[in-house]
Amino acid sequence: MLLLRSHRFLLPRCLAYSAFVSSYKSALGSPLPSLPRPRSMAKYSTSASPSPSRFLLRQLFEKESSTYTYLLADLAHPDKPAVLVDPVDRTVDRDISLVKELGLKLIYAMNTHVHADHVTGTGLIKKKMPEVKSVISKVSNAKADHVVEHGDKIYFGDLFLEVRATPGHTQGCVTYVMGNGPDQPYPRMAFTGDALLIHGCGRTDFQIFTLPKETLIYPAHDYKGFTVSTVGEEMLYNPRLTKDEEAFKSIMENLKLDYPKMMDVAVPANMVCGLQDLPTKA
Amino acid sequence: MLLLRSHRFLLPRCLAYSAFVSSYKSALGSPLPSLPRPRSMAKYSTSASPSPSRFLLRQLFEKESSTYTYLLADLAHPDKPAVLVDPVDRTVDRDISLVKELGLKLIYAMNTHVHADHVTGTGLIKKKMPEVKSVISKVSNAKADHVVEHGDKIYFGDLFLEVRATPGHTQGCVTYVMGNGPDQPYPRMAFTGDALLIHGCGRTDFQIFTLPKETLIYPAHDYKGFTVSTVGEEMLYNPRLTKDEEAFKSIMENLKLDYPKMMDVAVPANMVCGLQDLPTKA
Repeated sequence: MLLLRSHRFLLPRCLAYSAFVSSYKSALGSPLPSLPRPRSMAKYSTSASPSPSRFLLRQLFEKESSTYTYLLADLAHPDKPAVLVDPVDRTVDRDISLVKELGLKLIYAMNTHVHADHVTGTGLIKKKMPEVKSVISKVSNAKADHVVEHGDKIYFGDLFLEVRATPGHTQGCVTYVMGNGPDQPYPRMAFTGDALLIHGCGRTDFQIFTLPKETLIYPAHDYKGFTVSTVGEEMLYNPRLTKDEEAFKSIMENLKLDYPKMMDVAVPANMVCGLQDLPTKA
Repeated sequence: MLLLRSHRFLLPRCLAYSAFVSSYKSALGSPLPSLPRPRSMAKYSTSASPSPSRFLLRQLFEKESSTYTYLLADLAHPDKPAVLVDPVDRTVDRDISLVKELGLKLIYAMNTHVHADHVTGTGLIKKKMPEVKSVISKVSNAKADHVVEHGDKIYFGDLFLEVRATPGHTQGCVTYVMGNGPDQPYPRMAFTGDALLIHGCGRTDFQIFTLPKETLIYPAHDYKGFTVSTVGEEMLYNPRLTKDEEAFKSIMENLKLDYPKMMDVAVPANMVCGLQDLPTKA
């Protein structure tokens, strides 16, 4: 498994679709009787579109920092290779358990940026699973096994995440875009980190808004209980990004936010991907 | 729009697919250059399977009670009819705003059961949107515009939720199953309420486990940050439901849970679908 850069890439391994979806015959209880069905509605026909069960996406929540971590995997590949986006140190055990329960092979622990509100789980994951490689943007200047740049593709199995530079929240912020190519899952999904929160925040450098309107927006945080949005919705309802540049600047300059309480702990740790190389405390 | 019972049903209105997915041409920034693509992976081909963008599902979180509310809609129907499953009183304004922003027509506010840990949002929703009908199971003995029974189908547009009786947590608990028919979204989704939590809890009367393994499990709560699971995973990893009946009883009898802090407020309110008919306080 390789991290693929820019226009260079290697072909992924041959496929053998593992029969993830198998019929289950239960001796317990009885299924519902067959009910008469309404007229044909071919648009919802699913027999020709089993792809959702071959691409696994799990959104996981860390309540204290309201952080979302995302687990993505290619279930059609024999290795079931997987990546974690924005893991949190406190929930690493939960995430690793889930990876194991699902029979996945975690290959990358990735960050969208150097977080200031929580310590990334990348370092802890690498301690527990040394084969996992860490990934962050080159512009962040943080330490990681692989540094990525705008336009790079990060493959796991036959699926890939495309890197888009979305500076503003931090200079090194990137958005990982899933499905931005033929034969990739649909609709597209953008893992935006803190560059774009749902109806909330961010300076996106407009890279996110060049994606099609139906692209699903998966942010790194949400404080109101939302879990997902779309590019189209954010273009209409994001109270900050629907303004022009001057109005946007004025909003951001007048937020009067408190100093982030985890800042002094999180940033130094995250610059080395979550404590991985810090000396052990005596 | 009608609530359809048992084997009787009316045909839904004629369809006119509203062009929800339209191309977006941005003058801001420039899209990524076209990169060389790996060999064809037809299994992920999405051009023939746009159905995910025609069925809308939004999972919404209420942090204090760790409750999930679900918004479902048929975007292919001209009315974009929608239902809310297990709305919470505290987050009704958020939910109604989202319904409006998405241009949906909310027709049902449904509960999986009489909740003891939060007040349902159904009553407040009906105050603000009198055209919305409340739905709960007949066995719950709670008051609602429509009471449903095992095997009933609740249509919104051309989509439906099938009612499965899953008593145990309360006698009147039901699970709403999405996609359990031809021409319905795939994979199936089970909105389990408190009958089955992710790797957690519940007495499901085995109705949930008769669904195919790939069926997505969407519970009413999660306390560890999970958002979704599958029937297959719960059959393997649910620490309670993988036990036999005697072991299950023993586990449940020895949980030594505190008396639910919202119980005395929530249950009476939820028996009338969230305060809707209670006298106004002087």
